[in-house]
Amino acid sequence: MLNRIVYINGEYINEHDAKVSIFDRGFLFADAVYEVTAVINGKLVDNEGHMARLTRSCHELQLTLPIKVEEIARIQNELIRLNQITEGGVYLQLTRGSDGDREFGFPEDAQPTLVMFTQSRSLLDSQKAKEGLKVMTIEDIRWHRRDIKTTQLLASALAKQAAHDQGFDDAWLTENGYITEGSSNNAYIVTADDTVVTRPLSNDILHGITRAALMKLAEEKQIKVEERLFTPEEAMSAKEAFISSATTFVYPVVKINDKVISDGKPGPMANRLRDIYIELAVKQTS
Amino acid sequence: MLNRIVYINGEYINEHDAKVSIFDRGFLFADAVYEVTAVINGKLVDNEGHMARLTRSCHELQLTLPIKVEEIARIQNELIRLNQITEGGVYLQLTRGSDGDREFGFPEDAQPTLVMFTQSRSLLDSQKAKEGLKVMTIEDIRWHRRDIKTTQLLASALAKQAAHDQGFDDAWLTENGYITEGSSNNAYIVTADDTVVTRPLSNDILHGITRAALMKLAEEKQIKVEERLFTPEEAMSAKEAFISSATTFVYPVVKINDKVISDGKPGPMANRLRDIYIELAVKQTS
Repeated sequence: MLNRIVYINGEYINEHDAKVSIFDRGFLFADAVYEVTAVINGKLVDNEGHMARLTRSCHELQLTLPIKVEEIARIQNELIRLNQITEGGVYLQLTRGSDGDREFGFPEDAQPTLVMFTQSRSLLDSQKAKEGLKVMTIEDIRWHRRDIKTTQLLASALAKQAAHDQGFDDAWLTENGYITEGSSNNAYIVTADDTVVTRPLSNDILHGITRAALMKLAEEKQIKVEERLFTPEEAMSAKEAFISSATTFVYPVVKINDKVISDGKPGPMANRLRDIYIELAVKQTS
Repeated sequence: MLNRIVYINGEYINEHDAKVSIFDRGFLFADAVYEVTAVINGKLVDNEGHMARLTRSCHELQLTLPIKVEEIARIQNELIRLNQITEGGVYLQLTRGSDGDREFGFPEDAQPTLVMFTQSRSLLDSQKAKEGLKVMTIEDIRWHRRDIKTTQLLASALAKQAAHDQGFDDAWLTENGYITEGSSNNAYIVTADDTVVTRPLSNDILHGITRAALMKLAEEKQIKVEERLFTPEEAMSAKEAFISSATTFVYPVVKINDKVISDGKPGPMANRLRDIYIELAVKQTS
């Protein structure tokens, strides 16, 4: 693979030269937010949703976007072009920048740092979508504003790694006896009467852009959806289980802890939601 | 002030050239730990304690220290010498490094990133120590492994900034109705019978190096100490209140929310503990 061209604060540079100050608050304090937008057919998928969430994250943290979201979209598309991305994603991170030293309180004269880079990856044709994921449950130890998409991701990384170490693909996080969400995705189950169940929006989970799109599609297709809490036990005995995120779209879950879900194969509801989401995304990008 | 010389992965460089890759997991995931060691008389204060905690933090996160702690101490001292630091601190941050891309799970071939820099600051002669701090209480929304000193510090930064915005010096964090600790320090109160009360060690608070030293000094001086939970209400009606951290040592607290503590002046217990801690630290560095 050729070296990627990445974006930092107005400049397009080789990925190996892409650096930020050690005094950047993104590095010292995880004082930063991020977004990942999927790319299909060389075009951004539902980027308006991601930009709206980015704007909200910034607002919650008193972070200022240094450029308009329209200009961000222009840069995302330029990176797609420069790196010849057909499928994959564009990562974006905005930090509070730096005043050249380290203090917990916000610096008065810091300029935000805006970083973007592409990742090339097969999204539509996915082995994981065909096989389904094995997930294990683990305690959710993250901070309590998971609705803000910050780079405080160590707990999520630890959960994912613990899952890998134990032979699973991913982890579903539990708090007070209920599933919150996956380590980097929203979690769903399907009940015996074909109702899709997922946790309602709150500070406890990320407000997934793909989740919002799926909720809308489900309504259009008259698929029953119930937004409520569910336990690992209910999930383990559910008819189906699945996840959603910006770059996985929908992945079926075929095992939770030691329990095979349904017959261990991707279920019809997960497959159907994946298909109708992809249909929409492909239409959007054609 | 002359430009500082800072350390990154074996190199001593000008602070303005001190940069890390945007793919460093310290930047992308807050997958990093840190320590701050105080400097008095150009020497490190209780650095063994900080190195022991660093080693523990690394162990908890399966992070590998790229060099021995003795070598780290040598670099810290070299930075003190190069930057002619008499009083202040040496900051150290270790990240899991990068494999050149972004995935939640731990990369197999990443080299850790080790960064150190100095901060020059008056520690012994402190206006805040003379005046005492005004603190406000705020909900503790941090992750649940606060015993590991990671750079997931956004919640602490937000708490500190919220305090500043409302005219306070700092914030004391509350969880389930009890004080956990300060935004970047341990919290103490003194009861009517001159017992020092502070929260016991657990995953809920940082295991302060200065806290440990104070516990030992208190025992030697036959000061009564009780490690137990306390509420904001108990703190607001306490005889005294104070904080401890590596670079503040002990600062009295003279106001909590709208309640003046005692007569609004630093109390004798806080002053005494500050004095005996400084006496020890000065002796150690002379």
